[in-house]
Amino acid sequence: MTEQLVHFQPLGRKTEARKGKTLLELARDAGVSIESICGSAGKCGKCKVIVRTGASALSSPTDSETKLLSSDVLRNGVRLACQARIRVPSRIVLEVPEESRRGHHRLLASGVEPEVKLQPAVRKSLLSIPPATLKDLRADDDRLIDVLFKRTRIRASIHPGVHGSLPDAIRRKEWTATVTTFRDAEVIQVEPGDTTDEVFGVAVDIGTTKVVAYLIDLRTGETVANESMPNPQIPFGEDLMSRISYTIKEPEGGKRLQSVIVDGLNTLIQKLCERKGLQPEDILEVMVVGNTAMHHLFFGIPAHHVAAAPYAPVVRASLSVSPGHLGLDMYPFGRVSSLPNVAGFVGADAVSDLVSSGLYKDEKIGMMIDIGTNTEIIAGNREKLISCSCASGPAFEGAHIKYGMRASTGAVERVWVDPASGEVLLRTVDDAQPRGICGSGIVDAISEMFKAGMLDSAGRLVPAAGKDRIRKLKTGGSEFVLARAAETAMKEDITITQHDIQEIQLAKAAIFTGVATLMKKLKLRCSDLSRVYAAGAFGTYVDASSAINIGMYPDVPVERIKFIGNAAGSGARMCLKSTKMRDLAEELSHKMKYVELAGEPSFQNEFAQAMFLPHRDLSRFPNHGHVSARGKA
Amino acid sequence: MTEQLVHFQPLGRKTEARKGKTLLELARDAGVSIESICGSAGKCGKCKVIVRTGASALSSPTDSETKLLSSDVLRNGVRLACQARIRVPSRIVLEVPEESRRGHHRLLASGVEPEVKLQPAVRKSLLSIPPATLKDLRADDDRLIDVLFKRTRIRASIHPGVHGSLPDAIRRKEWTATVTTFRDAEVIQVEPGDTTDEVFGVAVDIGTTKVVAYLIDLRTGETVANESMPNPQIPFGEDLMSRISYTIKEPEGGKRLQSVIVDGLNTLIQKLCERKGLQPEDILEVMVVGNTAMHHLFFGIPAHHVAAAPYAPVVRASLSVSPGHLGLDMYPFGRVSSLPNVAGFVGADAVSDLVSSGLYKDEKIGMMIDIGTNTEIIAGNREKLISCSCASGPAFEGAHIKYGMRASTGAVERVWVDPASGEVLLRTVDDAQPRGICGSGIVDAISEMFKAGMLDSAGRLVPAAGKDRIRKLKTGGSEFVLARAAETAMKEDITITQHDIQEIQLAKAAIFTGVATLMKKLKLRCSDLSRVYAAGAFGTYVDASSAINIGMYPDVPVERIKFIGNAAGSGARMCLKSTKMRDLAEELSHKMKYVELAGEPSFQNEFAQAMFLPHRDLSRFPNHGHVSARGKA
Repeated sequence: MTEQLVHFQPLGRKTEARKGKTLLELARDAGVSIESICGSAGKCGKCKVIVRTGASALSSPTDSETKLLSSDVLRNGVRLACQARIRVPSRIVLEVPEESRRGHHRLLASGVEPEVKLQPAVRKSLLSIPPATLKDLRADDDRLIDVLFKRTRIRASIHPGVHGSLPDAIRRKEWTATVTTFRDAEVIQVEPGDTTDEVFGVAVDIGTTKVVAYLIDLRTGETVANESMPNPQIPFGEDLMSRISYTIKEPEGGKRLQSVIVDGLNTLIQKLCERKGLQPEDILEVMVVGNTAMHHLFFGIPAHHVAAAPYAPVVRASLSVSPGHLGLDMYPFGRVSSLPNVAGFVGADAVSDLVSSGLYKDEKIGMMIDIGTNTEIIAGNREKLISCSCASGPAFEGAHIKYGMRASTGAVERVWVDPASGEVLLRTVDDAQPRGICGSGIVDAISEMFKAGMLDSAGRLVPAAGKDRIRKLKTGGSEFVLARAAETAMKEDITITQHDIQEIQLAKAAIFTGVATLMKKLKLRCSDLSRVYAAGAFGTYVDASSAINIGMYPDVPVERIKFIGNAAGSGARMCLKSTKMRDLAEELSHKMKYVELAGEPSFQNEFAQAMFLPHRDLSRFPNHGHVSARGKA
Repeated sequence: MTEQLVHFQPLGRKTEARKGKTLLELARDAGVSIESICGSAGKCGKCKVIVRTGASALSSPTDSETKLLSSDVLRNGVRLACQARIRVPSRIVLEVPEESRRGHHRLLASGVEPEVKLQPAVRKSLLSIPPATLKDLRADDDRLIDVLFKRTRIRASIHPGVHGSLPDAIRRKEWTATVTTFRDAEVIQVEPGDTTDEVFGVAVDIGTTKVVAYLIDLRTGETVANESMPNPQIPFGEDLMSRISYTIKEPEGGKRLQSVIVDGLNTLIQKLCERKGLQPEDILEVMVVGNTAMHHLFFGIPAHHVAAAPYAPVVRASLSVSPGHLGLDMYPFGRVSSLPNVAGFVGADAVSDLVSSGLYKDEKIGMMIDIGTNTEIIAGNREKLISCSCASGPAFEGAHIKYGMRASTGAVERVWVDPASGEVLLRTVDDAQPRGICGSGIVDAISEMFKAGMLDSAGRLVPAAGKDRIRKLKTGGSEFVLARAAETAMKEDITITQHDIQEIQLAKAAIFTGVATLMKKLKLRCSDLSRVYAAGAFGTYVDASSAINIGMYPDVPVERIKFIGNAAGSGARMCLKSTKMRDLAEELSHKMKYVELAGEPSFQNEFAQAMFLPHRDLSRFPNHGHVSARGKA
């Protein structure tokens, strides 16, 4: 009997060729990361693989494949990994082309972090405890708590896990012991002697795509190390909707997704500790933020209600649970805490953004925008706050865009078009030869094309203004040639199609509908915004002018736009360091109004108007209207 | 190769004959309960077994054995199971004589239980929850807690274990759900529809010797079933000091003792549930009482400090821990709670006694006495309370008494001596033929002998007054023949030796020293006591007059002595049913003064005086002094 294995080349990975499984499922088994943006729906066409051996052992091409792959391509052995299934277990050799592999993403590890007064929930106190004698007959718990009470005026309880070591810990070093408390209310650790020189916590931002963890010295507030990794749930679905549907379709899907993210965090904690000569048991608290779906999946909370109207989260309130509840490797009687959520698509990460942006304490009305597959927008000031979420889709992450890709090596991230000559200048990530175009690049390109009159305000390509860059496609429609074959990594043209432009129009319209709706609720115009906080990687890398030009950001002078980077990570660190900040977060999430855009009567109309470049109603874009006017001409 | 098993006859049990193990250890392996009061010290001589086959495979008799067993007896194959070890693994057949087996003890399952207002910590509420809609976008947690808040005015948190089932539970029966809360502060269960007809808890009294569990319907407060078993830790040591020393000697000893008592409770809970058609998951809270050592061993808290001066408990405060922390089979997000301890030898059981006695609310000064190997005494009233513990030893349980036994079938429990004729009348447990004498019997016997002038006030037998009942022993000293061979089960005389009498004098002196010391602290005389609450099995079965006569109980008119039975069990039930009562218990244990008798300067002198019958200072026994006077004559 010959081996019945699927080989993934040139990666050298292999796994058993299990009958009925898709090649994408087997890739996951083999630990091979293949791009899959549509969640195995056969729609994005990103998961191409080339079958070198064993093509006849696979199922016939599906409708999705015949639609997305030409017959020539199919003949050459190309298949969509999410569609092709093992028909007959046998030896199968696959080539995973470069463009189907998930590359190293540029990770935005740090954000702007306002200073906070150090007031961590976990605190160590060195105590001198009166010895037990026949004249002082108190029990060990009272003996300890009485001393602590003198300091804090709070009568703490003792975590039951501490009882086992308590009597020895207070006696071993002549009745001198270090007591770790959680929020002054509970003793979670008692150690002999003085151990106050080691108080560590970890803040984690669980993004849909990446997970970043920061090791914080809670004596100084300093971030002493950080580590990141792609979210290990990606093989189960690129976006959060695919992951939620995985939890619905697979009986133990929710548990599986929880287990991989917990394992991932354990790896990050281990790495952080190794870098500072610590043990995971030295980590006393972990503070987690993430969007509502990531939050629920991490804490083992069913997430499927988040995915269906009215998109109710199961848990809004801040959590603080035992590491054992999750299986997290850290001090076992420490805590795993989270910031609160607001709604199904305004999660703890948005609350964290809000906390680190400082918007909640501004006198004047401002706005925080965190663009992603779902874009969270919070508007208001120290008196009131309202929020919404926009289904902006994955276009900015490269999905549904012909040459779209994430902001990894070779992605076009900046574009300049000379209106006179039609000359195009490009900047790519790592200055590599262009491989595709990422979100900030396509926003730039559309803005530049619009400014150059190559696009009209409806988003249509204007061939007459296109010099030699705009060409008709045989399949109908037209496209803009961003980079010519000779300049590119693949030696083929990188283009922006009419369809790509429409995808971006849909995405930016979704975002601006959120912006406009919140401003209407506040009875203000966009120009009244004193500040726009742009959070997240995309918000940091996108050119603000371009984003206003295409009608995605509100039309404010660009100096009012403040880039705050990975604000979710910053907020998590701040809340790890300060109970005052986390109490504030809880309060903000509780009092913040949430507007469900789908429930707004004006939604359709707002959305339709926002499809224009920059907008149907140019009075909303007084500063950038001239550009639009030219585009219209 | 012949089998290498040890057979225990006539019980039909067997186990592997492991080299180096004592027969007592192997008996435990085989699940055979052999009496062992001294904790394998080779002192009590209760663990006799007869070797029928394989005597040469055992170690030679130890010094303990040659001291306790005559050479004739040894020659007949009798060994002490705690001394004889397997030298050569081979087939060994042992007979376990009736008197070495632990019989069925008379268990005192219920005590006097004052009514309490039903206010359990676990409470179910049937809630009608506003459905989630696009007009009401709250998260499930807020949606639930907001409704609950309207009832209780307390903003409860939700146990993380509940999150998994929360969204389905509130939706399944059209937004009608039953919510279980713990102390109104935490939601521990959410069930679809109306389940308010089932709210159950279990109260447990973990005694050193027996464990009693009560199933309580928390809607009505009714005790619907009870079950008991010998404490499964007994094979590891009959008394608590032997068990504590087991935890010190054996590396995993503490864990092992915890695991057997947890298993025991699981068995009791299972049996209680079976009797009422319930599942262990229906038990929402378990309330545990026990002495400090039993409490610590159950909760996995090191108990060895309790055994050495200054006898500090690790934990005084009431506990409330997760069932998973202990491995208890019940509703996993319910609670295992305990009443508080006071000191190393005044535990949660004594606090429970106090709560059910009602002493804490009396206007006049009274006293609660719970006699056991350690006797707990609490004195005071609604204004102040003081407590102490007396090392009264196991004499009342039959240890160190030649014909001593527990109050099981055939134990002499009542004795009348006619002073004129010397005729002796006996009552035995189950009216069986006498097999030995239990605590209440020996107190009666000594009181009667003293009244009859057969004992003087120093506790010496007075042969001249003894009719034909007192006889000299060949080994020196003398003894009183309580039952003649013809009347007894073993067809040998049951006697009370001079040594036995001294053991009882030591025990009763220890108790009265506690009584006297507390009265001195209160600056009162015993006759000032308005009430003496006698708790526990021994307290219930002992004759109050006899107990006063020998100088064990304070000399008050017998009508002031109130028998409250298993008051510890009653208190546990009351506290399971009422948070007010458990808060009261916590408060009482915190404010109660504890007097360590060993630290009292007058201890020696008090003890020496209390050795007399009834006391050296007859002014302490004004009512019963005439008896003493006659005994002296």
